[in-house]
Amino acid sequence: MPPDPYQRDCPSRKLLDRIGDRWTVLVIATLEDGPRRFSEIRRRVDGVSQKMLTQTLRALERDGLVTRTVHAEVPPRVEYALTPLGRSLLDPLGALMRWATEHLGEVEQAQQAYAA
Amino acid sequence: MPPDPYQRDCPSRKLLDRIGDRWTVLVIATLEDGPRRFSEIRRRVDGVSQKMLTQTLRALERDGLVTRTVHAEVPPRVEYALTPLGRSLLDPLGALMRWATEHLGEVEQAQQAYAA
Repeated sequence: MPPDPYQRDCPSRKLLDRIGDRWTVLVIATLEDGPRRFSEIRRRVDGVSQKMLTQTLRALERDGLVTRTVHAEVPPRVEYALTPLGRSLLDPLGALMRWATEHLGEVEQAQQAYAA
Repeated sequence: MPPDPYQRDCPSRKLLDRIGDRWTVLVIATLEDGPRRFSEIRRRVDGVSQKMLTQTLRALERDGLVTRTVHAEVPPRVEYALTPLGRSLLDPLGALMRWATEHLGEVEQAQQAYAA
């Protein structure tokens, strides 16, 4: 059977959760232009905790979306980069982020109308 | 300033959370072909609890993505439908769902390689 996220036990539903997560969206977009260090990602994604960013990057690595490379320097330099699979998410996640920024005004108007 | 989900306090970040939520994705896709009753949506979105579906639909209504219409019949028929704003999410959310189903196999292979 092909994956079907409408089914509660299909692993595609959990995958959908992971890729739709706010930190996933922002971290993947941050890596669009090339490898970044942990501290660079953390600066860009305002407000993400060290723990949450660590968990997010580990999940992305586990899912094959991001690689973690340790460069043999003193001190060692650790960089995160998108894999080709991770790059294939740039378009869908970019569209999602664009929708949120472009339609925020309409959503806020709707919220005010709903509250009234 | 334009909305910027990289900033922790920008409301676009919370909006991104709501539209990337698994239940939002599945409910909006369920309404693509026309209005549906609560029970129809619940049957389609396998495993969603009554409480969670109620909360999801209310949030979608509040954000102006879905309308709730009570038809004066006995018993009253309540239907949910996408607004034009909600329809504008079909493409981005459809792309996200498609990505999850089309790339699940690669993600699972990556997970096995990571575990090894």
